[in-house]
Amino acid sequence: MRCAKCGATAVIGMRQHRLNLCAEHFVAWVPDMVARTIDKYAMFAPNERILVAVSGGKDSLALWDILIRQGYETEGVYINLGIDHEGYSDASEDKVRAFAEEHGSVPFRVVNVGEVYGKTVPDLAHTRRGKRVCSVCGLVKRHIMNRVASEGGYAAIATGHNLDDEAATLLGNTLHWQSAYLLRQAPVLPETHPRLARKVKPLCHLYERETAAYALLRGIDYVEEECPYAVKAKSIVYKGLLNQLEHRSPGTKLQFYLEYLHAREDGLFRQEEPAPIENTCPQCGQPTMATGLCAFCRLWEKTP
Amino acid sequence: MRCAKCGATAVIGMRQHRLNLCAEHFVAWVPDMVARTIDKYAMFAPNERILVAVSGGKDSLALWDILIRQGYETEGVYINLGIDHEGYSDASEDKVRAFAEEHGSVPFRVVNVGEVYGKTVPDLAHTRRGKRVCSVCGLVKRHIMNRVASEGGYAAIATGHNLDDEAATLLGNTLHWQSAYLLRQAPVLPETHPRLARKVKPLCHLYERETAAYALLRGIDYVEEECPYAVKAKSIVYKGLLNQLEHRSPGTKLQFYLEYLHAREDGLFRQEEPAPIENTCPQCGQPTMATGLCAFCRLWEKTP
Repeated sequence: MRCAKCGATAVIGMRQHRLNLCAEHFVAWVPDMVARTIDKYAMFAPNERILVAVSGGKDSLALWDILIRQGYETEGVYINLGIDHEGYSDASEDKVRAFAEEHGSVPFRVVNVGEVYGKTVPDLAHTRRGKRVCSVCGLVKRHIMNRVASEGGYAAIATGHNLDDEAATLLGNTLHWQSAYLLRQAPVLPETHPRLARKVKPLCHLYERETAAYALLRGIDYVEEECPYAVKAKSIVYKGLLNQLEHRSPGTKLQFYLEYLHAREDGLFRQEEPAPIENTCPQCGQPTMATGLCAFCRLWEKTP
Repeated sequence: MRCAKCGATAVIGMRQHRLNLCAEHFVAWVPDMVARTIDKYAMFAPNERILVAVSGGKDSLALWDILIRQGYETEGVYINLGIDHEGYSDASEDKVRAFAEEHGSVPFRVVNVGEVYGKTVPDLAHTRRGKRVCSVCGLVKRHIMNRVASEGGYAAIATGHNLDDEAATLLGNTLHWQSAYLLRQAPVLPETHPRLARKVKPLCHLYERETAAYALLRGIDYVEEECPYAVKAKSIVYKGLLNQLEHRSPGTKLQFYLEYLHAREDGLFRQEEPAPIENTCPQCGQPTMATGLCAFCRLWEKTP
């Protein structure tokens, strides 16, 4: 297998692009792909300040690495959820901290949920029967991310979702015909309120194995373990199914996602203006669709 | 495993319904489910005459069996496609003929494509490069079915598509975001022209293993082989994937199909009136969207 650019021994073959590359050219190709993705979906402008949500995993650290190298003004934010199974959250925080130091001490902050709010995410989920940990965790992370972005005046929140993540989410939403999600899943979720920043996914055209290979070749030290709560998540099942299809027909995952975006663009779904967000949570001051406390504050309110 | 109705030994467990049944109660339950499906989607009225498209396989023969037992006035139509791989088409025709005789010589006709039109479907597909056999075959069958139904004055054409067929088709249409199909796949395709009869799928709530079990328990002798051209069809891959999900979460296949119908009913997709069909093929006289010959006649026209 030879590199398509220089003829050297290739380290990776991307069958969906019919492209084999050597280490050097692959490490250059990934940021190019990210730059084209940022451009294609008009994610952000070169002068905009970006908050990068980093988990300590390969995807978010690869994303941060690429944005730093491309000269964007970024700040990393790590939310320590307090998952202590084999020290998961603290070990992840260490990886992020080490990354920031190695990258010339780029701006970086930690929000420790247990210290700031008095309870960790597993504590919260435990005392809120009927709510799954992943759903509580998502709510907590979105709230904190929005708050930090709003306070810091960031133009956008960038997350490390790769194509496999997006395709698995799409498959799950499709298998259950989750209309609300099918109407809006996208590489860019626009700002719906001055205090709810734009969300962008610059890795959404890259396969998981490509972000992993990039992190490896760049020597990025990341947490390899899946979140212990996510191990049984449906998304892992969906990724497995999509990989079976991909194996049989290279490009299936990418087409599934891109053709969904095209079909929506072409008017497959009903047209819907997002409802304006007019209320403010009396407790945290964040915008909310609820009339009283926002969902995040209700979460704590109801916890014994 | 005990029958939920009588406590006898159950022969089948339907995890998606949490229902185990003995042979006697299962053989009564299947036609009940079919009757409820016909009713739910207003497929046809008791006095309407139904053309049943029979292939010699378990599904279409089980369907015909059920409709006959329920007192519907039916005629079976078998389209002999001229597939001679191990005598596939002729063997299938023999099964249908034997079935009709065993059921009190119910009305039944054969349209032999090779004899009527001078070429078999494999011949046709061979001389039409770029068109796959399955696509040629679908076009030929639709044309003949419409013609027979129109000439015989049938209210509807009933086909034996089961839930696995429908869910696999839906998954394929979803993985490629085939908008035209996603906007109209349904248990009933209404009559769009006086000469294009309503199409109905009364088995669309039954799993493949249930129609197979019904045929077995009723002693229906059917062709067990898949069509030799369908063996590599994507639909078989999609059925396999859906069965993996079903195994993990019983009911997934059924929900995937039903929730799609609900989501569409609830307005997930854009609203679209089907375009009126205003032209008539100058050769065969069937209605067509084309301005000259219909797609069926063009198929023969261009064949050397």
